[in-house]
Amino acid sequence: MTRRLRYAMVGGGQGAFIGAVHRKALALDGEAELVAGALASTPERARASGRELGLADDRNHADWPSLLEDELRRNADERIDFVSIVTPNHVHFPVAQAFVDAGFHVVCDKPLVHTRAQADALVAAVKKQGTVFGVTYNYSGYPMVRQARDMVRGGELGSVRKVVVHYHQGWLASALEGRGNKQADWRTDPARSGAAGAIGDIGSHAENLAATVTGLEIESLCADLGSLVPGRSVDDDASLLLRFAGGARGVLVASQIHTGQENDLRLTVTGTRGTLEWRQEQPSTLLHWPDDGPLRVLTRGAPWLGASAQRASRLPAGHPEGFIEAFANVYRGVLTDIRARQAGTVADPLDADYPRVEDGARGVRFIERTLDSAASTAKWTAW
Amino acid sequence: MTRRLRYAMVGGGQGAFIGAVHRKALALDGEAELVAGALASTPERARASGRELGLADDRNHADWPSLLEDELRRNADERIDFVSIVTPNHVHFPVAQAFVDAGFHVVCDKPLVHTRAQADALVAAVKKQGTVFGVTYNYSGYPMVRQARDMVRGGELGSVRKVVVHYHQGWLASALEGRGNKQADWRTDPARSGAAGAIGDIGSHAENLAATVTGLEIESLCADLGSLVPGRSVDDDASLLLRFAGGARGVLVASQIHTGQENDLRLTVTGTRGTLEWRQEQPSTLLHWPDDGPLRVLTRGAPWLGASAQRASRLPAGHPEGFIEAFANVYRGVLTDIRARQAGTVADPLDADYPRVEDGARGVRFIERTLDSAASTAKWTAW
Amino acid sequence: MTRRLRYAMVGGGQGAFIGAVHRKALALDGEAELVAGALASTPERARASGRELGLADDRNHADWPSLLEDELRRNADERIDFVSIVTPNHVHFPVAQAFVDAGFHVVCDKPLVHTRAQADALVAAVKKQGTVFGVTYNYSGYPMVRQARDMVRGGELGSVRKVVVHYHQGWLASALEGRGNKQADWRTDPARSGAAGAIGDIGSHAENLAATVTGLEIESLCADLGSLVPGRSVDDDASLLLRFAGGARGVLVASQIHTGQENDLRLTVTGTRGTLEWRQEQPSTLLHWPDDGPLRVLTRGAPWLGASAQRASRLPAGHPEGFIEAFANVYRGVLTDIRARQAGTVADPLDADYPRVEDGARGVRFIERTLDSAASTAKWTAW
Amino acid sequence: MTRRLRYAMVGGGQGAFIGAVHRKALALDGEAELVAGALASTPERARASGRELGLADDRNHADWPSLLEDELRRNADERIDFVSIVTPNHVHFPVAQAFVDAGFHVVCDKPLVHTRAQADALVAAVKKQGTVFGVTYNYSGYPMVRQARDMVRGGELGSVRKVVVHYHQGWLASALEGRGNKQADWRTDPARSGAAGAIGDIGSHAENLAATVTGLEIESLCADLGSLVPGRSVDDDASLLLRFAGGARGVLVASQIHTGQENDLRLTVTGTRGTLEWRQEQPSTLLHWPDDGPLRVLTRGAPWLGASAQRASRLPAGHPEGFIEAFANVYRGVLTDIRARQAGTVADPLDADYPRVEDGARGVRFIERTLDSAASTAKWTAW
Repeated sequence: MTRRLRYAMVGGGQGAFIGAVHRKALALDGEAELVAGALASTPERARASGRELGLADDRNHADWPSLLEDELRRNADERIDFVSIVTPNHVHFPVAQAFVDAGFHVVCDKPLVHTRAQADALVAAVKKQGTVFGVTYNYSGYPMVRQARDMVRGGELGSVRKVVVHYHQGWLASALEGRGNKQADWRTDPARSGAAGAIGDIGSHAENLAATVTGLEIESLCADLGSLVPGRSVDDDASLLLRFAGGARGVLVASQIHTGQENDLRLTVTGTRGTLEWRQEQPSTLLHWPDDGPLRVLTRGAPWLGASAQRASRLPAGHPEGFIEAFANVYRGVLTDIRARQAGTVADPLDADYPRVEDGARGVRFIERTLDSAASTAKWTAW
Repeated sequence: MTRRLRYAMVGGGQGAFIGAVHRKALALDGEAELVAGALASTPERARASGRELGLADDRNHADWPSLLEDELRRNADERIDFVSIVTPNHVHFPVAQAFVDAGFHVVCDKPLVHTRAQADALVAAVKKQGTVFGVTYNYSGYPMVRQARDMVRGGELGSVRKVVVHYHQGWLASALEGRGNKQADWRTDPARSGAAGAIGDIGSHAENLAATVTGLEIESLCADLGSLVPGRSVDDDASLLLRFAGGARGVLVASQIHTGQENDLRLTVTGTRGTLEWRQEQPSTLLHWPDDGPLRVLTRGAPWLGASAQRASRLPAGHPEGFIEAFANVYRGVLTDIRARQAGTVADPLDADYPRVEDGARGVRFIERTLDSAASTAKWTAW
Repeated sequence: MTRRLRYAMVGGGQGAFIGAVHRKALALDGEAELVAGALASTPERARASGRELGLADDRNHADWPSLLEDELRRNADERIDFVSIVTPNHVHFPVAQAFVDAGFHVVCDKPLVHTRAQADALVAAVKKQGTVFGVTYNYSGYPMVRQARDMVRGGELGSVRKVVVHYHQGWLASALEGRGNKQADWRTDPARSGAAGAIGDIGSHAENLAATVTGLEIESLCADLGSLVPGRSVDDDASLLLRFAGGARGVLVASQIHTGQENDLRLTVTGTRGTLEWRQEQPSTLLHWPDDGPLRVLTRGAPWLGASAQRASRLPAGHPEGFIEAFANVYRGVLTDIRARQAGTVADPLDADYPRVEDGARGVRFIERTLDSAASTAKWTAW
Repeated sequence: MTRRLRYAMVGGGQGAFIGAVHRKALALDGEAELVAGALASTPERARASGRELGLADDRNHADWPSLLEDELRRNADERIDFVSIVTPNHVHFPVAQAFVDAGFHVVCDKPLVHTRAQADALVAAVKKQGTVFGVTYNYSGYPMVRQARDMVRGGELGSVRKVVVHYHQGWLASALEGRGNKQADWRTDPARSGAAGAIGDIGSHAENLAATVTGLEIESLCADLGSLVPGRSVDDDASLLLRFAGGARGVLVASQIHTGQENDLRLTVTGTRGTLEWRQEQPSTLLHWPDDGPLRVLTRGAPWLGASAQRASRLPAGHPEGFIEAFANVYRGVLTDIRARQAGTVADPLDADYPRVEDGARGVRFIERTLDSAASTAKWTAW
């Protein structure tokens, strides 16, 4: 067995949702173990969270600077191989910057940072260090998203003409903020979540999904952002028209006020020779309408899928995999890349398949441009 | 048995698709019979078409003015009760105007006419004559669309916040025009179809569906129209952002280049208390997510539906009804209204349930405003 | 235009469900007109029903013998071309026998008759007369059922190994009989419906569907019939194991106590090279799992369907057709055959595509054998 | 953090499918760690497998007797808390018996053992020892299966009348055995898999699912088993009629020759007041047709689910969970029970929710009775 990688987590303590998902995703394949952390924004909660997770006392820190300082002091045989940053958005930048500058490999949740300047700085820092930096656009880890990507980029749809991506949730259809819902509190608070609400939280997933699958670059966009729940200070409903380089058109909708919708992210891509549709809530299915035959329903695990989808699959077809497996696939890519760099080799790109800091930076730009467009009376805002 | 109403048809002869649908829809309930016609744009084809349909020679006309003249000459006991106009779009206006002015009840296909001026003229003429004028926005005839309408307007969704309507077809994904496809020929020819392509043909259905169900008025819109198939002179892909009076937002997509899609019209309406979704390709199902319980799948024929949906149903639940029945429901409304006026009474609104000339006029305005917006660099074009 | 055929109807008067469906199915294509009838079991209701349907007084009969006598008296140019028998089951035999013996073409609802002896007599009479005799196993008229049939019989599934057919309804889950539900009354009354309940009403449809699609002959069967609603004197739940000639196995379930189910008839056929699944409630879709590729979703109207399915389609793909169209397809086959015989020609088998008296007789035998098996302690009852 | 439990695994080495699933399921929640094993049937493969999984040399055994002997020698603070048995079926009995007799808690894969005598012996041994014995009928771990169970047993369907359970797979539709497919080899070999083929492998899951959800006891059954792939010596297709104590009827189909089907286990339960349907391939959805309203689509994670389903859920609604989570739920129940017994307390039944040795024994009896029935010419074989 290859050595388990050691990782620290910043954020993700008691009451956080996504931190536990990161940990479960890493536990699934057993290739990494949590050895250190600064798990919450107050020393008390941080330490209590670490105790719950079984961290040794000397690696259970009150804040992330202590964690960083401590790790730098440790010998290579116990130092972490990477850090996972799963804090609220406004903390991403300083932590990520500090760990990158210190030479650590980093995984950071999305949206990466709040401003384009921060994103550019981070991209530059990663480039300078030559380290691994993964961004957990976890939906890109689904096998059938990778299958879609390979089909579109491999030309099976011909030339892409239209991209429609919807991300509908209903959990913010009423004013949960201020009623004890921790998620709702920080996500609707511009100080912690950024100026963007739905467009930042789920719109950035929608952008990443479209970009991952099609590889198309947005040339200009036209956004309508609404704060439809009275009293809310960030957007909870976003609708965009998109124009892509090369002539394709697009529509992107991200809304958290669709009462009753759970996590309805769906993508449709149509080209001269076919159409693909994928829905996150039935992630193991990919619909493919070729122009010369009936709808084909591709399913995870089938022998006719491409290599990317095959490698992203753990169970036989018909044995449902889900969200955690997709997350684990992103991590698997990161870990493979870290191991390769540690070994001085270059990872097989099919294995080192994960969103990079540049994808995160593009997502930040997308949010910024969307906010610009929403504030503009001109139809089109250039990228 | 009540007397069968007599009708004439203008257009809809050999090779036409929609004329046959009108006739089958009327035949289904056996409440009207075709007795006269001017069925095509050349005398030869018109007469041949009439012979095929069993029209008597003296009522099988070479052109619509002859038909009109002949009908005006006939006694009340053989004169038509109404005329159905199912020609290509550019012919709608003169025929409709002439028959309305002559005092006939009229059914006209959509989009009603080419310009707002024509639409206004027609609305005025109908008002002046006091006649029945139905527009075959046939999708409004589906029982579950009526159920959706009654639920939304009855407040079951609370206050509407977002309307998303998509109409995706794939049949014009390649350049069929000029290759012997009669439909493709006239629909992509601005002289016959109007300046609007997809937005006129199917976008107007999408607009009508959204308006029928929600009753919301568009306040401003922002359109991106594309002619994505090389060489095409009308739009084949349309994406719009909508703002409704009262604050709701909307997205409308109408596209005929979605390879592999058949007739995928779907509407989602979300409000403060629930969400509805309807898809034309599974028309007997209406999805309802209330905010306080699980998704409810309403089906045609169930005892818990409202009166509108009940009256629009012919068969027990589970016995699929389709497109022709929806069409027949529009006609049933028209016929009921004609009979009531002939009897000097007022029809029960639940029975006289059909799109009126005003709905047709609103659709014309929608197309015009969409074309205006598409040509504008301003984000919003006022209604 | 070819002459409309003239038909009479026996049964199907006021309050009947299926008579109206027959009439609408015939009206849809406009190739036949109702000219005579004996529409109910009492003279008063019969005459009132005929008046409602616009029958001339002299062709609106109090009972079927009067109808038959009258038709035989009439000249060829006004005599009916065929009779439709849509009475409760126990009346089928005498009416059918009398009209066949008198040389008329006949359409009869299913199940054909009550006993195998009656069925054999009818088959013999039809053979002797050389007349057309259609049985309205209407589900066989769906385009995608015909597509399934042609695929299975054309070998696309390889050798068939297993046939599973379910027909679930919920309308008899409570004791509706005796509470004013006319349908429930006669269908649960052995005197009118036959000794068989669910197995006769819907089980016979299931048998016909399986036989139509696969062409396999049942060699032996094992039935469990239950009357699960207290007080009911016929079966309302039937489950069967089937063995077919050639080695394939089968399961057939017909039940009317599945609370909440509308009309859920579904068929799965699996062979060495593929599997097909069809569901009546989504009749325009046929699922096909080939053994060497992903699930294909075949839809009505697509260009890659075979000739049988193509000819059974009236509207473009994506424009839902339903139950009435399927019914109309059965009638279209009958009418084509009648016209051919009247012309002294032989109809194209692709057009004269309808269930024959032999199919009806096989259905009667199926019911009889099922009742035998249900009463037996032996596992297998031979066909 | 509570101490991680220590476990050993017997079987599940290189090339095995289900062993890895057990390990991932246990890793997901991080409450147990693999510390010892005898992972394959030959010493070489066993040791190689253990090395791959990072077992210490002195706990990586060549065979299970060595493992057992070694564990008995170890102090309580390093001895395993339980053993997982994931060998081919024929090895279950001796291993399980030995570990139970030695006082260990055990988890064993299904079907439990080959004969009723073995099953009875094991039940008796577990009772005598008072140890925990879980059987990984993993489908019972899905949240929506638990929801279904609680609804049925809580009376929401009224009195159950009919149970239909299908388990369709296609992977054995061709003769994979003897072509290097390890799974196919042992599963079609009576010496290793038992006299039962499909009925043992997947039929036992179907039986368990029906029993778990309904609690009904089979009173008699009627089975048709086929070996439809030429040359196969165990059944690959099973169809059964069931009669339950209390009068309900049932149909159970388990088949591995349904070409193209992946893992299509589905259950329908209908009662006097409603119907439920669950499908393994969309495990987070439960369909509920009440008799007094429309179909309700219950989804995992929704606030209106019962406590059992809530506790079996790890992620918010709309974030797909799958097979591994269901597996992990079974283990979570086992671990909770072990911890409770170690603490001398009694676990909350809502937490100690897992299939017991008695469920495994019932499954063995089901297989035995099915084989008896298949060999019998009598219709019904008593339980």
